[in-house]
Amino acid sequence: MRVLILGGDGYLGWPTALRFSARGHEVAVLDNFARRRWHQEHGTDSLTPIRSLEERIGAWSDLGGGHIRRFVGGVEDGEFLEGIVSEMQPEAIVHYGEQPSAPFSMMSRERAVETQHTNVIGTLNLLWAMRDHAPDCHLVKLGTMGEYGTPNIDIEEGFIEINHKGRSDVLPFPKLPGSLYHASKVHDSTNLHFACRIWGLRATDLNQGVVYGIETEETASDERLITRFDYDEIFGTVLNRFCVQAVIGHPLTVYGAGGQTRGFLNIRDTLQCVELAVEYPAEAGDYRVFNQFTEQFSVAQLAELVKRCAEHLGYAVEVRHLDNPRVELEEHYYNAVHTKLLDLGLEPTYLGEELVESMVHTIERHKGRVIEDAIDPRTRWRPEGPAEGVVGATRAGLSRFTGGR
Amino acid sequence: MRVLILGGDGYLGWPTALRFSARGHEVAVLDNFARRRWHQEHGTDSLTPIRSLEERIGAWSDLGGGHIRRFVGGVEDGEFLEGIVSEMQPEAIVHYGEQPSAPFSMMSRERAVETQHTNVIGTLNLLWAMRDHAPDCHLVKLGTMGEYGTPNIDIEEGFIEINHKGRSDVLPFPKLPGSLYHASKVHDSTNLHFACRIWGLRATDLNQGVVYGIETEETASDERLITRFDYDEIFGTVLNRFCVQAVIGHPLTVYGAGGQTRGFLNIRDTLQCVELAVEYPAEAGDYRVFNQFTEQFSVAQLAELVKRCAEHLGYAVEVRHLDNPRVELEEHYYNAVHTKLLDLGLEPTYLGEELVESMVHTIERHKGRVIEDAIDPRTRWRPEGPAEGVVGATRAGLSRFTGGR
Repeated sequence: MRVLILGGDGYLGWPTALRFSARGHEVAVLDNFARRRWHQEHGTDSLTPIRSLEERIGAWSDLGGGHIRRFVGGVEDGEFLEGIVSEMQPEAIVHYGEQPSAPFSMMSRERAVETQHTNVIGTLNLLWAMRDHAPDCHLVKLGTMGEYGTPNIDIEEGFIEINHKGRSDVLPFPKLPGSLYHASKVHDSTNLHFACRIWGLRATDLNQGVVYGIETEETASDERLITRFDYDEIFGTVLNRFCVQAVIGHPLTVYGAGGQTRGFLNIRDTLQCVELAVEYPAEAGDYRVFNQFTEQFSVAQLAELVKRCAEHLGYAVEVRHLDNPRVELEEHYYNAVHTKLLDLGLEPTYLGEELVESMVHTIERHKGRVIEDAIDPRTRWRPEGPAEGVVGATRAGLSRFTGGR
Repeated sequence: MRVLILGGDGYLGWPTALRFSARGHEVAVLDNFARRRWHQEHGTDSLTPIRSLEERIGAWSDLGGGHIRRFVGGVEDGEFLEGIVSEMQPEAIVHYGEQPSAPFSMMSRERAVETQHTNVIGTLNLLWAMRDHAPDCHLVKLGTMGEYGTPNIDIEEGFIEINHKGRSDVLPFPKLPGSLYHASKVHDSTNLHFACRIWGLRATDLNQGVVYGIETEETASDERLITRFDYDEIFGTVLNRFCVQAVIGHPLTVYGAGGQTRGFLNIRDTLQCVELAVEYPAEAGDYRVFNQFTEQFSVAQLAELVKRCAEHLGYAVEVRHLDNPRVELEEHYYNAVHTKLLDLGLEPTYLGEELVESMVHTIERHKGRVIEDAIDPRTRWRPEGPAEGVVGATRAGLSRFTGGR
């Protein structure tokens, strides 16, 4: 199968490219190296010493892994993207080519605009390219569980049946994004749904939870194939960051009370899910949404797990609660349905002490590369004022106006 | 009060500026004349011979109407917009500064991108400017009833209480936009809601129905103050277009069966609604949504009304059903709540024969300016194929995947 991977130089995009290539598919990756540039601009870097895309592709080929095509450019350039889709005629496109950080999107007007422009216009360009040049191609798009926020009802997979005043319909699940990055993904979802309804395109939106882990089968096979691993305040995700903090003797930084509950999954399961989505494509006109995570944890639970594992390996670990730089509920109801990928055959890799200890060992090999300054949160969701007060006021404001009370 | 009107050169923006100025407010308008440029590019024009913004403002001042400030530039330019908000310190901003046409957004990738960029990034720039320089300012934003589409349940005003698996929450009403323009307004709503929840801004989102009419109290007072009036396939709205077609002896063009039902309102009521929203502002942190229309009609009903009125004035009128260039349901349930503006004191101007005959008389004065070529629809929602088949297939597709069946 011809598979085009947008954002194929990234944390997940690169391992995905290797996986599809290893399975014998004809793979092309597209990337404009925005993620590398953003790290340079912020004085941060991947923990793992990643090679250039060209070197990686060469190494994979040298190891007998097959040829991966490489397109350098951004999805924001509609003409460029259209040319590639038209020429390659992909049967599946896996779209990771977006700005993926919530704090990045909250730093400034410029960064917020860059986020929503890159993500929304990039995806819109892609939908038009598919409409005009590859209408049967299956789009597998990375969304996020963060689109839903933390509503007080169970979270369904993309759609919900609503009974209202004696009538009923199945409608898009209402969204409460927690950052302008998450909002950009909500916008994408609306555009994707539209393109499937109106143009008859086929798409699967993977509302992914928070990913942890460093290695996949293919990236672990040679040092040159390693994927990036971020632990900084902008691009690092929580479990990865905790593991780095434990290794370098930095307190594990829990934002606020730590009761924030989210869905999580292992990077190996991300690849499984994407493979399943590609293997069992959506039908023409269908916009499918899968909630892509395997387990729910609170931030405090993860801190405890990492502390326990690292102490077992001989580290002294402190858990520190910081003023929450975000505006979010720190204690809330959370129960998200996630059965569709299991129905397709997903076999979850559950989080346990073994996995955490293995991450700690990998991090130890690169600990000399850690930039400690980059870890603590500097990006605040509001210009000023204590976060707790804001949350209370905002929640009250939300109830007041939404209910018309 | 200091009132800044974005898109103040437009069909509704200009009459709104006059209204606030007539009431003694300190008014500034901002516009980049995109609407005039788009008409030039498409070889179309306003039916009414509108003056330049500079001339209009001069005429209003000459007539004793007070000074209106004029800023020339686009909302897409964040630095420009930030400078104006920071310097003027508006107490209310009325935001009409968007690309407002559904067919325009469906013409090509370039037009779709222009629409979503102008609308989403423009509004995002505005929210940041308010956050950083005028956090107490009240934003009155023009949305559209078209964000909701035609769900099979009653449409509420922005939010709906959902009871699900024994729990309950009040959440954003699910949206089914019918064009990429309508989708851009959905994106705006998500960003506005976010800015109110997280930054404590105050905003009123006016989900407006289809506006008809030419004159308002102020624009009718002098020929130089007349506002634009569009009847072409791109920017014309249905009732306005029917009246022009009746006057020039062109069949009234109903798209498909004509059972499409929407909310409508008189341009005079638009001004009333905006005034009420500004007079009774949202509280800090509140994102209010008002459904802004006064009556529901089907397209076929409007065609019949115009036919009856024009025939009464001596015109011979034919109603012609065209293949629907859009992808939409032509017979559907539609019942949208619209009580919040009535509760604030809106006194509706209902549509009747008198109003239609008065529009016909105004159009007669300018009938020599009509560009007949510009009226019939050329922009199709899908690249090819009959629209009816597509609607059926798409609706079936929607049911199939949304219900997981």
